[in-house]
Amino acid sequence: MATIERFNTEDERQYYETAGRVQVKPGWLQGEGQPMPEMEPYLWRWAEVEPLVMKSGELVTPDRDVERRTLRLATPGLDRGTTHTITAALQLLLPGENAPAHRHTPTAIRWVLKGTGAYTTVEGDKCYMEPGDLVLTPSWTWHDHNNEGEEPMVWLDGLDVPLVRYLRANFYEAYPEDQQPIVGVAESERKFASGALRPAWEEPSAPYSALWHYKWDKTHEALHQLAEVDASPFDDVAMEFSDPMTGGPVLRTMTCWAQMIRPGIATRAHRQTSCAVYQVYKGEGHSVIDGKRFDWTEGDFFVVPPWVWHEHANNSGDEAILFSIQDIPIMKQMALYREEPYEANAGHQPVTGHFKG
Amino acid sequence: MATIERFNTEDERQYYETAGRVQVKPGWLQGEGQPMPEMEPYLWRWAEVEPLVMKSGELVTPDRDVERRTLRLATPGLDRGTTHTITAALQLLLPGENAPAHRHTPTAIRWVLKGTGAYTTVEGDKCYMEPGDLVLTPSWTWHDHNNEGEEPMVWLDGLDVPLVRYLRANFYEAYPEDQQPIVGVAESERKFASGALRPAWEEPSAPYSALWHYKWDKTHEALHQLAEVDASPFDDVAMEFSDPMTGGPVLRTMTCWAQMIRPGIATRAHRQTSCAVYQVYKGEGHSVIDGKRFDWTEGDFFVVPPWVWHEHANNSGDEAILFSIQDIPIMKQMALYREEPYEANAGHQPVTGHFKG
Amino acid sequence: MATIERFNTEDERQYYETAGRVQVKPGWLQGEGQPMPEMEPYLWRWAEVEPLVMKSGELVTPDRDVERRTLRLATPGLDRGTTHTITAALQLLLPGENAPAHRHTPTAIRWVLKGTGAYTTVEGDKCYMEPGDLVLTPSWTWHDHNNEGEEPMVWLDGLDVPLVRYLRANFYEAYPEDQQPIVGVAESERKFASGALRPAWEEPSAPYSALWHYKWDKTHEALHQLAEVDASPFDDVAMEFSDPMTGGPVLRTMTCWAQMIRPGIATRAHRQTSCAVYQVYKGEGHSVIDGKRFDWTEGDFFVVPPWVWHEHANNSGDEAILFSIQDIPIMKQMALYREEPYEANAGHQPVTGHFKG
Amino acid sequence: MATIERFNTEDERQYYETAGRVQVKPGWLQGEGQPMPEMEPYLWRWAEVEPLVMKSGELVTPDRDVERRTLRLATPGLDRGTTHTITAALQLLLPGENAPAHRHTPTAIRWVLKGTGAYTTVEGDKCYMEPGDLVLTPSWTWHDHNNEGEEPMVWLDGLDVPLVRYLRANFYEAYPEDQQPIVGVAESERKFASGALRPAWEEPSAPYSALWHYKWDKTHEALHQLAEVDASPFDDVAMEFSDPMTGGPVLRTMTCWAQMIRPGIATRAHRQTSCAVYQVYKGEGHSVIDGKRFDWTEGDFFVVPPWVWHEHANNSGDEAILFSIQDIPIMKQMALYREEPYEANAGHQPVTGHFKG
Repeated sequence: MATIERFNTEDERQYYETAGRVQVKPGWLQGEGQPMPEMEPYLWRWAEVEPLVMKSGELVTPDRDVERRTLRLATPGLDRGTTHTITAALQLLLPGENAPAHRHTPTAIRWVLKGTGAYTTVEGDKCYMEPGDLVLTPSWTWHDHNNEGEEPMVWLDGLDVPLVRYLRANFYEAYPEDQQPIVGVAESERKFASGALRPAWEEPSAPYSALWHYKWDKTHEALHQLAEVDASPFDDVAMEFSDPMTGGPVLRTMTCWAQMIRPGIATRAHRQTSCAVYQVYKGEGHSVIDGKRFDWTEGDFFVVPPWVWHEHANNSGDEAILFSIQDIPIMKQMALYREEPYEANAGHQPVTGHFKG
Repeated sequence: MATIERFNTEDERQYYETAGRVQVKPGWLQGEGQPMPEMEPYLWRWAEVEPLVMKSGELVTPDRDVERRTLRLATPGLDRGTTHTITAALQLLLPGENAPAHRHTPTAIRWVLKGTGAYTTVEGDKCYMEPGDLVLTPSWTWHDHNNEGEEPMVWLDGLDVPLVRYLRANFYEAYPEDQQPIVGVAESERKFASGALRPAWEEPSAPYSALWHYKWDKTHEALHQLAEVDASPFDDVAMEFSDPMTGGPVLRTMTCWAQMIRPGIATRAHRQTSCAVYQVYKGEGHSVIDGKRFDWTEGDFFVVPPWVWHEHANNSGDEAILFSIQDIPIMKQMALYREEPYEANAGHQPVTGHFKG
Repeated sequence: MATIERFNTEDERQYYETAGRVQVKPGWLQGEGQPMPEMEPYLWRWAEVEPLVMKSGELVTPDRDVERRTLRLATPGLDRGTTHTITAALQLLLPGENAPAHRHTPTAIRWVLKGTGAYTTVEGDKCYMEPGDLVLTPSWTWHDHNNEGEEPMVWLDGLDVPLVRYLRANFYEAYPEDQQPIVGVAESERKFASGALRPAWEEPSAPYSALWHYKWDKTHEALHQLAEVDASPFDDVAMEFSDPMTGGPVLRTMTCWAQMIRPGIATRAHRQTSCAVYQVYKGEGHSVIDGKRFDWTEGDFFVVPPWVWHEHANNSGDEAILFSIQDIPIMKQMALYREEPYEANAGHQPVTGHFKG
Repeated sequence: MATIERFNTEDERQYYETAGRVQVKPGWLQGEGQPMPEMEPYLWRWAEVEPLVMKSGELVTPDRDVERRTLRLATPGLDRGTTHTITAALQLLLPGENAPAHRHTPTAIRWVLKGTGAYTTVEGDKCYMEPGDLVLTPSWTWHDHNNEGEEPMVWLDGLDVPLVRYLRANFYEAYPEDQQPIVGVAESERKFASGALRPAWEEPSAPYSALWHYKWDKTHEALHQLAEVDASPFDDVAMEFSDPMTGGPVLRTMTCWAQMIRPGIATRAHRQTSCAVYQVYKGEGHSVIDGKRFDWTEGDFFVVPPWVWHEHANNSGDEAILFSIQDIPIMKQMALYREEPYEANAGHQPVTGHFKG
């Protein structure tokens, strides 16, 4: 919209002075606040991040009374979060350690990267975590993490903190003890993991998935089953984790995907108003994001900002598996979701640069 | 409602005569049509039914041009269907035989009892049938059955024919050939069977389950998983087959259950406005229905009419597994579903007789 | 489906005898029960019905202890109901009379034809009835009718009794007194009649409309407003009464329509798997149903069975207004709703006869 | 959460330096970005705002090529919007002027304050605006405003711009001409305003209300009808504008309320995670917000930030009517909506100060 220069006259000067005092802002003047911070696509190399994660074990010792030992993936251009809606961070829990029980309105997902022998307790349900497992600790559910094994545990935390903070709806409560009482073991999983059968007496009752723990072996099998029969031109063999009680996304604010980019596949580019944080769970390949090529290998992380063209490719001989957290549910519920395919050049962007990091 | 005797006067005689001519019926006179036929609880012994099923293979030979070789479970008191909403029948398909392709508005489920090597094609998707598998051929989907194996195949057909006929909505169409073209093999199963993950690009699009084939091994495992953590006082370890895209029942008019009555369990009685047809897939035990005891063993079938008290027991040392077709979805959608627990005597009915058959 | 003649051999004779004893019915034999009764389109002339209604006041006197004084529109071909899902009846309530309080699972609508000064109490809410008003007494709500005025009241009752009885879900309870206590007057109407605004604290909570009373003046105005901007080729200016809390039909089993056939309009024919009972609230015209012409005038009733072609016309100089009860919600919830336009002859059936009655 | 002091050792210094280079942020250090800007409750006096609105007509002359002549209510503490989710602004359109046609993903509502003779065209539907009317121009609908009358028009614009910008989903398109073609006049209103009746052939098809124009007389009548039978302890006679096709809020991101505070009423305090912008459409009274008293009179505006106690009172002899825009739908869809009643002191906050402005 066009604007006009200020203060042509004393009359105007007084006008704007009064407007300022009365707390009204003329829309015809430049500058509705500063522009939104622009996040850039970015990639984090596991080779660089892992040492910092492991080292944090020495640095942040229990005596220092830190609730969680986390390293946030800090996208250039943002002063909080990994995107404007999602915070992704690496968490380290050493043998014998406990991350004390609490609950908060921001919802969290845990994607297990390394180690065994630890568990997360969600509302009394003890969920043992193994690599490739997805564990949900939804909004306002009590949760604590405990490592009763011999190895350091590392997982990816995904939270909707930036959105919840923006909406001024961040509530937090500490549990009186470090650990909440155990009610059962893998109850949610044993009741709901079959997905296609549900306890006959259960009805949907919460704004999040009834299933809190998705085991890697089932996820991996599902990807291979799907690969036999169908795939997406933009995401290849992509599966969305879903709530067995509704068939919808596992959370209201974030959805999680596991996708396999098969050897030799190069997907077509598209862009969406949603954004995503990816973890390379297995294999290697590259993505072209906003015209820049990002080569990735096992363990790396990368972020795709809203409305930038992106495509994925796997030139290796082995399957590549990506896990991602996406904010599609927000955009769809607000009726702000848009998706556009890249039409030119058979769907592939010209590559104008390589990400060096 | 109270009524009055007819024809006190000539005046009245004329009144009723006129009413008859004008096609209006006084509500204060007895008899709004004849009463609804009353169905009785009933049990069919596999030992008696199976010979008739097998024999039908000799009796109904291909040259006789019969579309389907079925024996309907005919509940005493009804002149059609097995209940007023469900028709259950045994179907036999011999090696080399084909049950020609057609579609109809009544929806059907197939619960496989005997044999391997046959398949049902649903909308081009080839589904190989094995004992314990549930296969859906929903309303207006093309389907045909083919036995390319060495053994006779026997399965239970469940259809909503009585309801659809009552609603005058029975449409039928024959396919020009005996077999529809095969588009793929187990595509629905490979896309949707995982249940807790769904192809990221799929949206619910039909008034029935996106998953058409539920394999026995997954069903059996789900029952055992659930048994570890929870059960219903009325149905013990009961699981409802569900649509992975919605979490709801697989069909609008019928739902299917697999339930395990564990050794030593005797459930509490309740009654529902819905009705059900059961098949004893495994094991032995008994049910008390409307005060009468029905002993059942592997292969038997029994029917529970609406609003009669029923409870199940397993005194054997092994698990008993019941499959059932229920019309709960109709009742819930019409807001006519009611359920009542039997309070007296710790939830157990006095047994007033035994079913002899 | 083809069938075969019985009893070619003694072997077969024995087979069918055994099948009969075991209670299984071969599907390859003729005759899955008798065919469904076929209802015919029919029309009832107010000139003939009204005298019978008024006369019933003399015939059925209070001392005769009849709960409701009703005359059912008895469609030829059916032994109950007006269609297989709907019962329509005329009810007469004389000055000073009370139709005692009760509730039942069948749901009822009341469409007021004659008189003022009477009211229906629905769950304690006193609703004064005037011609053209629609009053709902949904499933299991306490209701009683009382005439405190000077004139006989006549209204059309519409109930889903045939369906509810077919589903064996008919429950009935009498209220201990003839009248339930009055909690308020027109509360539902004053809270919900505005339709486009709702009490800010209310949430949908029942399987039926939150609005129980639709006043004629609003209905009439809505028809005229719609007539200014839009109409249906099959039903002209047709409005469906809706639940302000959901926008959906007022009941799970029936929906009600008010429609205006404008002077000079002849709609195109179509057929639906649903059925309808119509009342000519105002004006005159005719409908062609299944090729037969039904001339109607103010006060008449007619029935359109499932899946028969029907079209409406108004050759008079004044508006014609039809009220109807339709079972579309049942068919849509069961995914059995179908609709087909009549393509030939610009959408008009050849008229093969006139209804004489 | 506890934190630790930085740089105890050279080792740590290097660690944080590396972390910075690698773009990961230790969670155990203070400061996840700056805190969210804190908005204060605030009130704008019509006596002060109106002159600025009218004066803007002289200041911003057509030759200056400004698309819209608006004054935003700029809440202290925020650098954009009126809350973090809602922008409220006053718009002036002089006789003969046109605000050119465009569309954008942010959704807008218009609440008319002054003047007649202007109209807003929404997707070709010409809606004449009068004081007290609510007009919706939902996300991505073409709209332009035109004043063909003799008086200046002033209305309140409410947009979800701050949220849409935060979500990086702001799309904008200008229409090739200043005015879009007129398809009809008040079509949406004539089809859908009755609320309790809907065109029989219409189905919900958009993520916003089918009704775009809510006329003041119906709103006012609805408030008086409701006042006869019910009220909220926190908001007195409060009505939510709703979508007649769904019964839900008119928009996905904002809901609009009209509420009457009756003479002598002082509501109880509560707080919600949602926020609201109010306009005093009629009468006078005061609100206590976060312990501070805000006296308001006709034409004033005030804002209630998230999670602050607020209550309303009317000590005058006449009805007071408040219009408000609230972001409840966002919070409910995200499952972040919370509400808490103020329990102490019969629900009334101690007043610790008066707003002077």
